[in-house]
Amino acid sequence: MGGDHGPSVTIPAALAFLNDDPDVRLVLVGKPEVVDPILAREASRFANRLSVHHASEVVEMDDKPRDALRRKRDSSMRRAIDLVKEGQAQAAISAGNTGALMAISTIVLGTLDGIDRPAIATAMPTRRGQTTMLDLGANAECTPEQLLQFGIMGAMLVTALEHKERPSVGLLNIGEEDIKGNEIVKQAGELLRGSALNFYGNIEGNDIFKGTTDVVVCDGFVGNVTLKASEGLAQMVGAFLKEEFSRNILTKLLALMALPVLKAFKRRVDHRRYNGACLVGLKGVVVKSHGSADAYAFECALQRAAEAARFNLVSTIADQMALYHATHPVVDSTNGAAA
Amino acid sequence: MGGDHGPSVTIPAALAFLNDDPDVRLVLVGKPEVVDPILAREASRFANRLSVHHASEVVEMDDKPRDALRRKRDSSMRRAIDLVKEGQAQAAISAGNTGALMAISTIVLGTLDGIDRPAIATAMPTRRGQTTMLDLGANAECTPEQLLQFGIMGAMLVTALEHKERPSVGLLNIGEEDIKGNEIVKQAGELLRGSALNFYGNIEGNDIFKGTTDVVVCDGFVGNVTLKASEGLAQMVGAFLKEEFSRNILTKLLALMALPVLKAFKRRVDHRRYNGACLVGLKGVVVKSHGSADAYAFECALQRAAEAARFNLVSTIADQMALYHATHPVVDSTNGAAA
Repeated sequence: MGGDHGPSVTIPAALAFLNDDPDVRLVLVGKPEVVDPILAREASRFANRLSVHHASEVVEMDDKPRDALRRKRDSSMRRAIDLVKEGQAQAAISAGNTGALMAISTIVLGTLDGIDRPAIATAMPTRRGQTTMLDLGANAECTPEQLLQFGIMGAMLVTALEHKERPSVGLLNIGEEDIKGNEIVKQAGELLRGSALNFYGNIEGNDIFKGTTDVVVCDGFVGNVTLKASEGLAQMVGAFLKEEFSRNILTKLLALMALPVLKAFKRRVDHRRYNGACLVGLKGVVVKSHGSADAYAFECALQRAAEAARFNLVSTIADQMALYHATHPVVDSTNGAAA
Repeated sequence: MGGDHGPSVTIPAALAFLNDDPDVRLVLVGKPEVVDPILAREASRFANRLSVHHASEVVEMDDKPRDALRRKRDSSMRRAIDLVKEGQAQAAISAGNTGALMAISTIVLGTLDGIDRPAIATAMPTRRGQTTMLDLGANAECTPEQLLQFGIMGAMLVTALEHKERPSVGLLNIGEEDIKGNEIVKQAGELLRGSALNFYGNIEGNDIFKGTTDVVVCDGFVGNVTLKASEGLAQMVGAFLKEEFSRNILTKLLALMALPVLKAFKRRVDHRRYNGACLVGLKGVVVKSHGSADAYAFECALQRAAEAARFNLVSTIADQMALYHATHPVVDSTNGAAA
């Protein structure tokens, strides 16, 4: 129920989602005064596919993760994740505070065996289709082992959501040669090469949007900066295009005539379609919607969460991690930990 | 004379530059069979403003920096930098091998007092104008002190090239709060706050293109990935726009009608205008052109080099470094070096 716009966005999205996907059931978690009237109004339409779960508190966007975790034990965020933990829900989704969602999910659900810390993964548009990038900010500093884990989790996420058998995995670096980059990335490259993944090798920044690989692995610092810089650039380009078409009556007329073309263009780079970042590595499916998502974007995130649950994202990652550890019995987990 | 296109690009650019700027003198450095005929043909036009300097070798794009440095002592790249060292030229410019240019410049010219390693800085378009970002790949791993040095060098570069008195400096991070980011960035933030710079504080990826600050400081890994990802995204957006306007005869007609608008748009995001990355921190001005630059882009890089030399970039940076060390006598240069 959170995010910048609250129920005015999440409720229409939830109802549209129920409408579009007859197999899903949805639990609205929130304050009784918010969720009960919605249930009363819509129950007849969706019968037992729509239910509510009460929570007395709300995690605010500026709450510290620690405070959200310790002091708001009856927040809607916490209760939604509790439902996943108890097996009453197969996925939780929130447009709220990212740090709090990460902290609560990690403590309540726990991480899978062999995963040091969960990562945030999202799909991004490319010239060929889309690519999945992780981590996007949960881990500002990573060990080589964590980057390997990101590779495994990212590949399984692509398998679950896009049904690709052996997604290609690229390691984001500043050159293609194996000797490029810093020590952590070089060691991560060795681990990835030694894994069962379909490892492409090092890729560079421009490979992200070229769509060179299905998965792009990087630490959370690089991933966060790159994602936000890309959002900033896309917004700038959009604003410039709009400004040039708004200069005078003639250019405005042209814009009107070219509207179908401009709309088709906009659709191709519409970030709303890619809304819904997965918190991977947890013993449960948790999806984070952009705080500023509109109803269309939020429904995309709901669809992504349903798809991840349907295709057993969690057990797929667990199986792959077990396979990795079975075939690589000696893993020096202190390797690179000094960095 | 290097780069992907060689003299077919650099020579027309050089001649146009001489034409446009009556105060500059230019030395073409290269093999006699390449540069002599150009001098013979153009000498009458530019009199003593155009001269040549012979070199028997060429650094290839795939030469290792070490080999270029040790084995090609009579390369055009080396000779051009020698001319700067000897005071016969005020700046050297190359579209060739970046690693070799960095290695040769560092060894031949040396770094300024207080600068650990040179950095690569370039201007990027923003919604408000432009911003200068460094490092872009020379230093994959940086200490907090190096990031501080980048801040000082970047600010002085903006002062020299854009004539701004006190450029604002932002530290690229994954959140605005001081406590965000990894240890190195946190320590760099403290050093920058304690300096005489007009330090804005932490900025995020989207601030680059918003134009929040005049200077963006980051390590070479993050800078390189961000720059290349931005180039890749811009290319993708351009390609999508072109594709949508090329769909059928009607959309093509629309594109023809909207040509002035589309051209005005393209001019605003034209990366060629920003060509010419400065290797800052050296005892001399060295500018790196994009390898794939065309004549227009290469002339932009020549103009940038001339401007940096005219406004005494090198002594300005040296003065600021001296000032910093005079006011901060105790600098623990081992701080963070273990990272």
